[in-house]
Amino acid sequence: MQIDKKQIATFNKNLLVEHKENLTSLSKKHKNIEQVIDTISNYNIAIPSWALGAGGTRFGKFGFGGEPSNLEQKLEDIGVINTLTKSANAVSLHIPWDIPKDAEAIKAKAKSLGIQFDAMNSNTFQDQEGQEHSYKFGSLCHTDKKVRDQAVAHNKQVIDYGVALGSKSLTIWLADGSNFPGQLNFRRAFENTLSSLKEIYAHLPSDWKLFIEYKPYEPNFYSMVIQDWGTSHMLAKDLGEQAYTLVDLGHHLPNTNIEHIVATLMTRGMLGGFHFNDSKYGDDDLSVGVIKPYQLFLIFNELVFGMENNSSNNPIPAWMIDASHNLKDPLEDLIQSIEAIETAYAKALLIDQEALESAQLNNDVVEAQRILQDAFNTDVKTILAEARLRNDGAIDPILAFRNLEVRNELIKERGLKSTATGL
Amino acid sequence: MQIDKKQIATFNKNLLVEHKENLTSLSKKHKNIEQVIDTISNYNIAIPSWALGAGGTRFGKFGFGGEPSNLEQKLEDIGVINTLTKSANAVSLHIPWDIPKDAEAIKAKAKSLGIQFDAMNSNTFQDQEGQEHSYKFGSLCHTDKKVRDQAVAHNKQVIDYGVALGSKSLTIWLADGSNFPGQLNFRRAFENTLSSLKEIYAHLPSDWKLFIEYKPYEPNFYSMVIQDWGTSHMLAKDLGEQAYTLVDLGHHLPNTNIEHIVATLMTRGMLGGFHFNDSKYGDDDLSVGVIKPYQLFLIFNELVFGMENNSSNNPIPAWMIDASHNLKDPLEDLIQSIEAIETAYAKALLIDQEALESAQLNNDVVEAQRILQDAFNTDVKTILAEARLRNDGAIDPILAFRNLEVRNELIKERGLKSTATGL
Amino acid sequence: MQIDKKQIATFNKNLLVEHKENLTSLSKKHKNIEQVIDTISNYNIAIPSWALGAGGTRFGKFGFGGEPSNLEQKLEDIGVINTLTKSANAVSLHIPWDIPKDAEAIKAKAKSLGIQFDAMNSNTFQDQEGQEHSYKFGSLCHTDKKVRDQAVAHNKQVIDYGVALGSKSLTIWLADGSNFPGQLNFRRAFENTLSSLKEIYAHLPSDWKLFIEYKPYEPNFYSMVIQDWGTSHMLAKDLGEQAYTLVDLGHHLPNTNIEHIVATLMTRGMLGGFHFNDSKYGDDDLSVGVIKPYQLFLIFNELVFGMENNSSNNPIPAWMIDASHNLKDPLEDLIQSIEAIETAYAKALLIDQEALESAQLNNDVVEAQRILQDAFNTDVKTILAEARLRNDGAIDPILAFRNLEVRNELIKERGLKSTATGL
Amino acid sequence: MQIDKKQIATFNKNLLVEHKENLTSLSKKHKNIEQVIDTISNYNIAIPSWALGAGGTRFGKFGFGGEPSNLEQKLEDIGVINTLTKSANAVSLHIPWDIPKDAEAIKAKAKSLGIQFDAMNSNTFQDQEGQEHSYKFGSLCHTDKKVRDQAVAHNKQVIDYGVALGSKSLTIWLADGSNFPGQLNFRRAFENTLSSLKEIYAHLPSDWKLFIEYKPYEPNFYSMVIQDWGTSHMLAKDLGEQAYTLVDLGHHLPNTNIEHIVATLMTRGMLGGFHFNDSKYGDDDLSVGVIKPYQLFLIFNELVFGMENNSSNNPIPAWMIDASHNLKDPLEDLIQSIEAIETAYAKALLIDQEALESAQLNNDVVEAQRILQDAFNTDVKTILAEARLRNDGAIDPILAFRNLEVRNELIKERGLKSTATGL
Repeated sequence: MQIDKKQIATFNKNLLVEHKENLTSLSKKHKNIEQVIDTISNYNIAIPSWALGAGGTRFGKFGFGGEPSNLEQKLEDIGVINTLTKSANAVSLHIPWDIPKDAEAIKAKAKSLGIQFDAMNSNTFQDQEGQEHSYKFGSLCHTDKKVRDQAVAHNKQVIDYGVALGSKSLTIWLADGSNFPGQLNFRRAFENTLSSLKEIYAHLPSDWKLFIEYKPYEPNFYSMVIQDWGTSHMLAKDLGEQAYTLVDLGHHLPNTNIEHIVATLMTRGMLGGFHFNDSKYGDDDLSVGVIKPYQLFLIFNELVFGMENNSSNNPIPAWMIDASHNLKDPLEDLIQSIEAIETAYAKALLIDQEALESAQLNNDVVEAQRILQDAFNTDVKTILAEARLRNDGAIDPILAFRNLEVRNELIKERGLKSTATGL
Repeated sequence: MQIDKKQIATFNKNLLVEHKENLTSLSKKHKNIEQVIDTISNYNIAIPSWALGAGGTRFGKFGFGGEPSNLEQKLEDIGVINTLTKSANAVSLHIPWDIPKDAEAIKAKAKSLGIQFDAMNSNTFQDQEGQEHSYKFGSLCHTDKKVRDQAVAHNKQVIDYGVALGSKSLTIWLADGSNFPGQLNFRRAFENTLSSLKEIYAHLPSDWKLFIEYKPYEPNFYSMVIQDWGTSHMLAKDLGEQAYTLVDLGHHLPNTNIEHIVATLMTRGMLGGFHFNDSKYGDDDLSVGVIKPYQLFLIFNELVFGMENNSSNNPIPAWMIDASHNLKDPLEDLIQSIEAIETAYAKALLIDQEALESAQLNNDVVEAQRILQDAFNTDVKTILAEARLRNDGAIDPILAFRNLEVRNELIKERGLKSTATGL
Repeated sequence: MQIDKKQIATFNKNLLVEHKENLTSLSKKHKNIEQVIDTISNYNIAIPSWALGAGGTRFGKFGFGGEPSNLEQKLEDIGVINTLTKSANAVSLHIPWDIPKDAEAIKAKAKSLGIQFDAMNSNTFQDQEGQEHSYKFGSLCHTDKKVRDQAVAHNKQVIDYGVALGSKSLTIWLADGSNFPGQLNFRRAFENTLSSLKEIYAHLPSDWKLFIEYKPYEPNFYSMVIQDWGTSHMLAKDLGEQAYTLVDLGHHLPNTNIEHIVATLMTRGMLGGFHFNDSKYGDDDLSVGVIKPYQLFLIFNELVFGMENNSSNNPIPAWMIDASHNLKDPLEDLIQSIEAIETAYAKALLIDQEALESAQLNNDVVEAQRILQDAFNTDVKTILAEARLRNDGAIDPILAFRNLEVRNELIKERGLKSTATGL
Repeated sequence: MQIDKKQIATFNKNLLVEHKENLTSLSKKHKNIEQVIDTISNYNIAIPSWALGAGGTRFGKFGFGGEPSNLEQKLEDIGVINTLTKSANAVSLHIPWDIPKDAEAIKAKAKSLGIQFDAMNSNTFQDQEGQEHSYKFGSLCHTDKKVRDQAVAHNKQVIDYGVALGSKSLTIWLADGSNFPGQLNFRRAFENTLSSLKEIYAHLPSDWKLFIEYKPYEPNFYSMVIQDWGTSHMLAKDLGEQAYTLVDLGHHLPNTNIEHIVATLMTRGMLGGFHFNDSKYGDDDLSVGVIKPYQLFLIFNELVFGMENNSSNNPIPAWMIDASHNLKDPLEDLIQSIEAIETAYAKALLIDQEALESAQLNNDVVEAQRILQDAFNTDVKTILAEARLRNDGAIDPILAFRNLEVRNELIKERGLKSTATGL
C-alpha cells in the first residue's frame, strides 16, 4: 500500500486555516522559530524492520491484522510512515530475518519509496533452524572458539549484506551474559568478546561505523558482558576510530542519569547512535515519550549542545526507534514515537543557550531551571506540523492514518493472519 | 521414568560414613538439631507443571531434550524430584494446559507417585486458539462485560477441574494492567476486578482457599491492576475469609523489604501462599537462593516466627517454586531450588529465638545481628541430607540425578525434540 | 517584611499587555479556560514552617542570609510568598520548633497576613535537649512503654497547640524502624505502633483528621515500621473514620506507580493529604516538577478525576509542599514549586474527560495517549498568571521577587547569619 | 585506653578447647585450610578516622559516650580494634579534621600502637569556618577558577600532610554535582574537574597513588560529576599511571552488578581501592555484610581471582571500611564489619578454582553454582578465630570487647558528652 501526495493534500485542507493562525501566533513569541522548523524538517529517524509487527513478552503476544510478511512489505509500511511524517526515510535491517534475496531489487524498491538503509543489525541471541552451534551460553564471549567463530562469521556476513544495500554501519547488541553467579568467568568473557569484536572490526569497510550497545540485564539476569557505557566505551577505544558507543534509552539501571552519559560520550566524540523508546521499570520498550518526556527533552538538550559545540568531532548520531508494539497498531505507535522525538528536539532547540550559559556561570539555579522549563512548556505542535507541511507531509499524521483507513487497506491486501517475520 | 528406593540406597552407600560423622559433629554443637531435622523432613514444596520444560524470554528460548509433553509425564518428572529429595510431593496445575482428560486416571497416577494436587492456576494473560474474546486489554478488569464473563467462567472451570482432582485452592495471578498512561481508568479497572473476583469467590467450595497474587509490572509496563500487597490485601478482605494474599518473591519493586511484608500479612492471618524464586533485577525467575540467600533466610525467620506465634490463625502457607529454567536442566534446577529453600528454613530454625527476643527488648543491635548471623553461617547441608535419608531420599540429590543419568533416560524415552506444553 | 498590593500592581503593569494578548489567544483554543482559571485561583497549598531556611544533607548545609529565626518571621515569609502567588494561604507547623509562646498573638499575626493553620506536625525522630527518654530506637513502636508514653504525650500536646491555633489536623510521619536485620521484631513494632496511635487518636477533637505518612527508608535503612501505603491504610482503618493516609511523593521505592496509589486511596475515600516535592533517586526533596513533571500531571489527573467522581466521599486532600532547599533561596524555590503544582493541576483540568472515557471504553490506546499529551503539552503559563492577577497577585512572581529585592530586604532586617529554627 | 596481650590471653583461655576441636574437625574437611588461615592472618583493613564517632542522617544524630575528641584518641580506638582483631593496623585520615599539630609525635604514637597511615582523604563537600570561597556549587568542577584553585590547593596540602606521616595515597571523593537540570553544564564541569585533577596529580610524589571515587547521587540529587566507574576510569586514564579507580560498595544504582565492575577494573589493572559497607537502598553505610553477604562473597571471589591471575599488574587494593555508625557502638560495629569482610574473604579462598574453571569451560551451570555455594555455606568462624589467635588476638573480639568493658572505660576517660571531630 502507498499513500500519495494528493491524498495528504486533501486531508490537510481542512486543518490548514487553523494551522496557519497558530503558526502566526507562535512566530510572534519566538524569534528563532524558522530555524527550528528548518532543523525539524530535515530530521529523520530510522525504523527497524522488526518494529512493524506485533511485539510481545515472555507471556505471549497479541497479534493484529495486515502485518508485513516480507522485506518488501516492511519497506512499504515504512513508506507509509514516511509519507505521513516526512521524518522516517530509513530502515534498519535485522539479519537473518531480512536477508535480501535480490539486493538490487530491494535497493530499487527502497529508492522508489524514498527509503535509505541505515545501520545493519546482527543477531546472536537466538538459535536459527539448522544452525551448527548454539548461542545458549553466549556468542562472541563463548568459551568454545567454534561458537565464537560462527558468531563472528555471522557478523561479517551482515556487513556484506549491508554493503550490497548501501548501509554504512553495523550495530551489535550482545545478549551474552550469565544467569547465575559462577556461570561465567567475567575476565575470560570480556577477553573473548574483545577478540571476537576485533575480527569483526577488521572486516568493516573503511567508510563504515561500528556501534556497540550496552545493557545491564535481560535476557541474562545476573550479568551481561557489556553491562554499561563504560564497558562499551572501553571496547570501542580498543577497536579503533570507527567504533562508537550506542545508547538505547531502555538499557539502564533504575534512576540512571542518561543525559549525563550522553554528554560524557559526546565530550569524547564517542556517541555513535541512539535507540529511542521509553520505560518505567526496565527495558519496557514503550512508545517514546509516554513515561518521561522531560528526561527526553533533557537528553535532547545535551544532543543539541553537543552538536553545536562539537570540538571532539562527534559524528551525527544514528537515530532509530526501538520499541515493542504489544498493544497499539505498530504504524500508529511509530508515528506517535516520531512526534514525541521531534517534540523533545524542537523544545530543546527553543532553549535560550546564551541565557542558560550565563545563568550557569553565575550559579543562578532558579534562572537556569526557568529557562529549561520555559522551553519545555512551549507547545511545539505547530512547529512539527509546519515542518511536515513544507515536505508535503500530513499536518496531523495519526488523524490522516485513520482517515485514510490505512490498517484496513493493509488487512485487505495481506489478510488478518499475516505475521511479521523477525523477532 | 521412575527411580526406585534401591537405586537411591545404592547411591547413598558411598556417602554414608562421612555423612554420619558430620551429623555427629553437628549434633554436638546444636542442641535442637533433632527438631530441625524433623521439621525439614516433613516439609514439602509444590512444583508447578509449567516448570518442567525450558523457560525463555521474549528474545527466545533454548530447548533441551526429554521434556514432558503431557500431564502424565509431568507427574513422572515430579516423581523423580520427589524420590530424590523427598520434599516435592505436590503439583500445581495450570489450566488450560493441564486439563485432565480423565481425572480419575490422573488422580490414580499421581497417587501411585505419591503426589498431591496443590493450588490450581488459571490463565487469562494469553489468548487460546478459538477463544471468543481476547484478553489483549485485560480479563477480570476488562471494560467489556463479555470479556469479564469469559474470564470468570474460565476461573470457575479451573475450580471444577481442581475439585475433580482433590485440589483445595485457586491461585489467581492477574496480568491485567496497562502499558500507557491514560489507557486504563484505575478506578474502573479496580471495581471491575473486584466484582469479577466476587463471582469467582462465590463458586469456591467452602473448604477451598483463594490466593491473590500481586505484581508491580510485567507483562504490563505502566500499571498492573493488583500492583502490590496492599491492593491484594484490600481485595482479599472484601471477598471474605477464604481469600488470602500470595507472595511471589520476584513480584516487587527494587529494594523492597519483603520479609516485612510477610510479617505484616501474618500478623493479620492473611498470608495464603508463597512462590519461591530469586532475582537481581525484576521478575527474573532464577533458581531460589542464587542471588540473595540472606534475604531468603530473613523471610524464613519471619515465617518461622509467624507460625510459632500464630495468634491470628494464619494458615500454613502454600509453598511453591516458581522459577523459569532458561539455561539449566529444569529437574536439576528444581532440586537446587528445593535445597536452597530448605537451607534457609533450617538456618531459620536454628535461630535462638529466646536470645533474639531478649536482645531486641534491650535494643542490643550488635547482639541481635550476631544471633541471626550465627544461625545463617551454620552449615546445614548435613541436616538436609539426614532429613532426606530418614525418608529414603538421596544424601546428595544432584549427584544422584547425574549418577543415575536421569536426563539421558528421559531423552531416550521421549526424544530430543519433545517440548513441554504450557507457558 | 511585607509586600503591598501597590508594589505588585506597579510590577504587573509592564507585563499586562502581553499577558492579555496571550489570554485572548488561549481562550480561543480552549473552551473551558474560564473554569480552569477559576479553579486555580481558588487553589492554595500549605507551606511548612521548616521549609523557610536552608536545608542540607548528612554531609552538611550551606546557609544563606536573612533566614527567619522565629515563628513570626516564618509567617512573614509565607506572607511574602502568598502575596506574590496568591496560592499559599496556610502554614503547617512543626513542634517543638514552632511552639507558640502566645497563641492568640500568633493567630492575630497570621490573620493579618491572611494565613491559616494547616496540619500540625509532631516530631519524634530527634531527641530534644532535656528530653527524658531517647528516640534512638524508636518512639511509637519502642519496646519500652515509657518511651512510647512520652511520644504519645508529645503528639497529644501537638494536638493541643493546634487546637489553640485553629488547626484541624495532625500529620504523623514516623521515622521508627531499624537499620539491621534482627534489630526489630516487626510484629511487636507494628502492634506497639498501633496501640500508641490509638491513644493519640483518642485525644483527637471530633472535627480533626489524623494523617499517617508512610516511607520505605530513611532515616532507617533496613526497615520502616510504616513502610508503604498498605501499612498506613491498615493502621488508618483500625483507628477509625478520622484517620487517613498521606502521600509524600518522595516516599516510594524506585519506579513506583504513585498515581495508581492515589487512585486506589481515593476509591476508598482514604486519601487525606499530599506532600509535594520531586526526586530522581530517593527522598531527594527537590523542588516540585523539576525531574518528573509528567508524573505530577498524571497524579493530578487522578486527583481531578477522584474529586469529580467522589462516590467514596474522599475529603479534599490537605496540600503541602515538603522540599528541602539546599541550593536555592527557599522563597524562590517555594514559588517555583507552587507554579509547578499549579501547572500540573491546570493541565490536568484541561483533559477532555469525556473523550478520555470514550477512548478507554473502546481500548483506543493511541487516542487516550493523545488526549493526555494534548493537555500536557498546552502552555498554561497564562492561565496561572491570570488566576494570580484576579487575586491581585504577581503575573510573574519570581521576577517580582527579584525586582522587589526581597532577599536583600530580609538580610537587612535579619542579618546574614540568621538561621531558621527547626530541622 | 589500651588492651594488653595478657588480658586477651586470659579472655581466650575459656574458649580455647572448643576452638581447637572445631579447628581439627574443619581441617579434616578442607585441605587448604592452612593457606586460608595464613592469608587471613596477614590481612588488614584500614579504619577511617571519621568512623569512630556516632554517625547520623540529615534528620539528626544520636550520640553515645566516650567518643574520641582528637587524633590521638582516634588512634587509640583503632589500637583497641586492632589488638582484638589483629586486622586493623592502619588509619585513613580526613583533612581538615585530622590535621596533625605535630606530625612526628603522631607518627610515634601510631607506631607505638602498631598503626600505619593509609590513604589520605581530602574534603571539599563542606565549607569550613573562615574559608574564603564556598563549595556550595562545587569545588574541582566549579565555574569560578578561584574556587577550583582553592580546592586544588587543599588537596595538595592533604598530600603534604600525608607525606609527613608516611601515607602513600590520596583518595578523592568528589561531592560535586547538581540538584537541578540545567544547573550545571555537564561538559564544562567535566573539563574543569579533569583540569583540577591534573594539577593535584602533578603534586603527587612518585611513589604515591591517586584513588578516584565515583558515586551516582548524594549529596547532589540530580547529577554527580563522577557518577560511575566509567567516568572515574576515564579520568584516571587521562591522569596517568598513578591514578586508579576506587570502588565504594554503597556508591551504585539499584541492582548494579558490582562484582562485574571489580572484575573489569582488575582486568585493566585499574582497581586502586575498596570501601566496604552494606546497603539496601542507597549509600546507607550500614555495617559490612548485614544485608547482602552473598554479594560480598562474590566480590571477594573476583578479588581473589584477580589477585591470583594478575597479568595486568593490578596493585593490591587499598582496603577500608566506610560505614556510618548511627545506632551501634562504632567500635563494636567496626569489629563486626571486619569479621564480615574476613568471612567473605575466607569463603572466597575456599572456592575450588580448578573445579570452577572446569565447570565454566563446560558451561555446567549447575556445577558452577554448587561450587560457589559449597564454599559460601562453609562455616569459617573457626578459621577467623585461628588467624587472630596466631597473632595474639581475641578468639571472639566482640565478646572480649564487652567482657573488658571497653566502652565504659572510654566513657570514664573521656566523659559521656565527648564528641568525635569530623563529619
